[in-house]
Amino acid sequence: MGYTEQDLLEHLKEISLLNETMGLAHWDMTTGMPDKANEQRGEMIAYLSGLSYELNFGEKMTNLMTYFEDKTSELSELGQSAYEVAKRAFDLNYKIDKESFLGFQKTLTSAHADWVTSRETKDFNDFKDSLTRLIDYTKQFIPLWKKDEATPYDVLLNQYEPGMTVEKLDEVFATVRKGIMEIRAKIEAEGKTPQTNFLYRHVSKAEQREFAEKVIADLGYDLSRGRLDDTIHPYELTLNQNDVRITTRWAEEDFQMAILGTIHEAGHGLYEQNINPEFAYTPLANGASMGIHESQSLFNELVMAGSQNFWKRQYPVLQEITGDTFKDIEFETFYRGLKQTRASLIRIEADSLTYPLHIIIRYEIEKMIFNDGVAIEDLPKIWNDKYEEYLGIRPENDLEGILQDSHWSGGSFGYFPSYALGYMYAAQLEHAMNKDLDVQAILASDDYSAIIEWNKHHIHQYGASKKPNWLIEQATGESLNPTYLIEFLKNMYYAAYQITDNN
Amino acid sequence: MGYTEQDLLEHLKEISLLNETMGLAHWDMTTGMPDKANEQRGEMIAYLSGLSYELNFGEKMTNLMTYFEDKTSELSELGQSAYEVAKRAFDLNYKIDKESFLGFQKTLTSAHADWVTSRETKDFNDFKDSLTRLIDYTKQFIPLWKKDEATPYDVLLNQYEPGMTVEKLDEVFATVRKGIMEIRAKIEAEGKTPQTNFLYRHVSKAEQREFAEKVIADLGYDLSRGRLDDTIHPYELTLNQNDVRITTRWAEEDFQMAILGTIHEAGHGLYEQNINPEFAYTPLANGASMGIHESQSLFNELVMAGSQNFWKRQYPVLQEITGDTFKDIEFETFYRGLKQTRASLIRIEADSLTYPLHIIIRYEIEKMIFNDGVAIEDLPKIWNDKYEEYLGIRPENDLEGILQDSHWSGGSFGYFPSYALGYMYAAQLEHAMNKDLDVQAILASDDYSAIIEWNKHHIHQYGASKKPNWLIEQATGESLNPTYLIEFLKNMYYAAYQITDNN
Repeated sequence: MGYTEQDLLEHLKEISLLNETMGLAHWDMTTGMPDKANEQRGEMIAYLSGLSYELNFGEKMTNLMTYFEDKTSELSELGQSAYEVAKRAFDLNYKIDKESFLGFQKTLTSAHADWVTSRETKDFNDFKDSLTRLIDYTKQFIPLWKKDEATPYDVLLNQYEPGMTVEKLDEVFATVRKGIMEIRAKIEAEGKTPQTNFLYRHVSKAEQREFAEKVIADLGYDLSRGRLDDTIHPYELTLNQNDVRITTRWAEEDFQMAILGTIHEAGHGLYEQNINPEFAYTPLANGASMGIHESQSLFNELVMAGSQNFWKRQYPVLQEITGDTFKDIEFETFYRGLKQTRASLIRIEADSLTYPLHIIIRYEIEKMIFNDGVAIEDLPKIWNDKYEEYLGIRPENDLEGILQDSHWSGGSFGYFPSYALGYMYAAQLEHAMNKDLDVQAILASDDYSAIIEWNKHHIHQYGASKKPNWLIEQATGESLNPTYLIEFLKNMYYAAYQITDNN
Repeated sequence: MGYTEQDLLEHLKEISLLNETMGLAHWDMTTGMPDKANEQRGEMIAYLSGLSYELNFGEKMTNLMTYFEDKTSELSELGQSAYEVAKRAFDLNYKIDKESFLGFQKTLTSAHADWVTSRETKDFNDFKDSLTRLIDYTKQFIPLWKKDEATPYDVLLNQYEPGMTVEKLDEVFATVRKGIMEIRAKIEAEGKTPQTNFLYRHVSKAEQREFAEKVIADLGYDLSRGRLDDTIHPYELTLNQNDVRITTRWAEEDFQMAILGTIHEAGHGLYEQNINPEFAYTPLANGASMGIHESQSLFNELVMAGSQNFWKRQYPVLQEITGDTFKDIEFETFYRGLKQTRASLIRIEADSLTYPLHIIIRYEIEKMIFNDGVAIEDLPKIWNDKYEEYLGIRPENDLEGILQDSHWSGGSFGYFPSYALGYMYAAQLEHAMNKDLDVQAILASDDYSAIIEWNKHHIHQYGASKKPNWLIEQATGESLNPTYLIEFLKNMYYAAYQITDNN
């Protein structure tokens, strides 16, 4: 039986519309669904997941993916791109026999429950067996997923960052680790610690929201094609290009959390809002990878909202919205306070300087699991030893250590490096942008559009039609280079800690 | 091929879950979806509607409906009820050939557009052709829908109020019309007009919401199994029994609109929250009819929030929430102001006394269309003449007249009487309730639960498993009797207009 491009695109559109529906159900569940409707929502999502499985791996999809395998030349450029991205997702699962697939899904459910329990007991032993089963399943799937990757862990990396390798990450993470350790040592020896107590002054949720909405609009996030809601674990979720939702968690005694969190999520949103509209209803209407996606959220958080010039303009706005709250805090004190850095045990609470170290620890451990066959029961000790080595602090229990993140209980191995890639990409993009634009001058002005357009032109518009490395080379003239991140962090933190000898 | 009850219930559950999904998409679209996402949401809803059509009228459903037609004895009591209700909905459409069905759907779209245009031009002529086509389609469908109804319009009535007839409605509406005309004449002649200017004092949305949420909670609406959102055209929408959402429109210079509107919608919500949980995921988990549903929203609005005793307790709460706004308004002045009645042209702005007349006018016109073949171009004049006859005022243009409601442009003929049935049922229920309870004493207390339980016991729990007439006879000991409404309106309005001679 033959198919046309129209057949392919119509099927991909159905998948896209069903994804949108499931996205709405998820958004609603995590923003304002009545408390007692959890069980019923589970039924709805299970029903939609069944439809989704059929669309993604059923007969029609299998036929389409098989038919075009050696006939991509029959497709337009867009059709070819869409097919390629769809095929990548299809290949991930269709080779897995249904029994294993369902077994894995079932293990995910019990693993999540065990992870929650283990967090209560603060004891890794309560999670160990589930984690072992998830790892065993993943090891069983890796040969089915493998194309030409050099090691098992490379296969996992590829799922989140197409084209990324252990060889490359080993190299760049060595540079990042060394660079950050040096900056931290210099701050320790020579830095002037900023004042920070004012960061915990009360700022009402309404005031925070007013300021956050203004800032993200300045940063290009279009609220007429999105919305900002309250949730517990903040995220960005795209229903479609004209409906890109972000969420945040407000803490009235720690305003910077929600402000910077909202700016971060708005970076994800900005990316999704600016993807080429012609990609609508195809898998191209997504980010290129998790790492590229983080590059855009972190560009907002690190480059834009990390800049003194940015805050010189925005701090007076915050002061005006918050009445007398920060009346006695001068700009320099405010900015330096924001840039405080210190070792911490919990990744999601880490500052920008120490954050990449948290990621490197997880990367090294994941690599040991999949490439070196480390014993699972040894992981907590390895984790704690690495925190002591890299950050100089040691978790007192597993909740402060290996149990803190949900990723592994969700079967996501190879995801963590994306966060650090986002940091490196963001700094590398900023460096390249400075060849075309005076980034700091723009940040000091009241119109950021030249920066936004640059990112739109070099990254956003392409959606998932290009691979991460292509995007980075095209935008910056070279492939991933971690030295820009180190330079960026040096400049930012040495200024905040008033270290003038920038070497 | 044979089927089991399990097969039937599983299929009905799929329909129910898909309805829930479509409900969520609709709720989101009308409460907070980004402005620019309309077109995309249209695509999503069209996709889901396609799935819904297949589930409701496709091969599987046809087989199930056919198989059990003479085998309902194989089903449990619940299975039989669910089959019967499902079959009723199925029969409405499956006899219609696909060409006519699609033609009707297409006409609906253009009719809505023409109706919107005609409202701008205030000229019925711009809507006339579309309306004629919708009426012609409906006339073509009536013989396919017909079972043993006496007249064509009876067939339409039956779709919204199973068992209702023109014969019955002619009789009860004659009583209602006569009764209301008499009350209005007496008020005109002897009534003392209440003070009403304070009704337009500014009450902030936040204050209105605080009061409304407190009142609807008192009235039994469970906010942990529902939520209250802002919208343009208020409605109640059930996703499932634990997720029953209501919406309202706030006007800060006309607080009673949102307060009474919210109380009304909460009555619909209360009904849905209290349906027997065993009916979940079947078509029994719905109201029995549009008329019975309105009986519950109007019970809240008319009996509960129409009562002096209710407001004696709630007015001080409103006063406290609104600061000094109503400090100078004594209770009696406040209550009498709420009960103001006067002829108006727009149904949805009408007070409780004149509202049924608006419905009777529509009923008489619909009956003329389907039973007497009146010429469509004559309708505006007929409409205006009837307003002059029944309400003493005449629309100056078609927007104030025949173009005001969306029902006909949506192809809903036979729906309007439900509103008036709701009034009559509500008053009849109140009368019957007084045999078991001292309704006014309960309304004067701080615990309305005995009233709520009575409605739950006699109406709510049954969902759609019983027909309207069964419910009313069981709850009140007789079938629909309009005299209770007239008595109720007399008592309420004569008190408000200080007419002591209650005859």
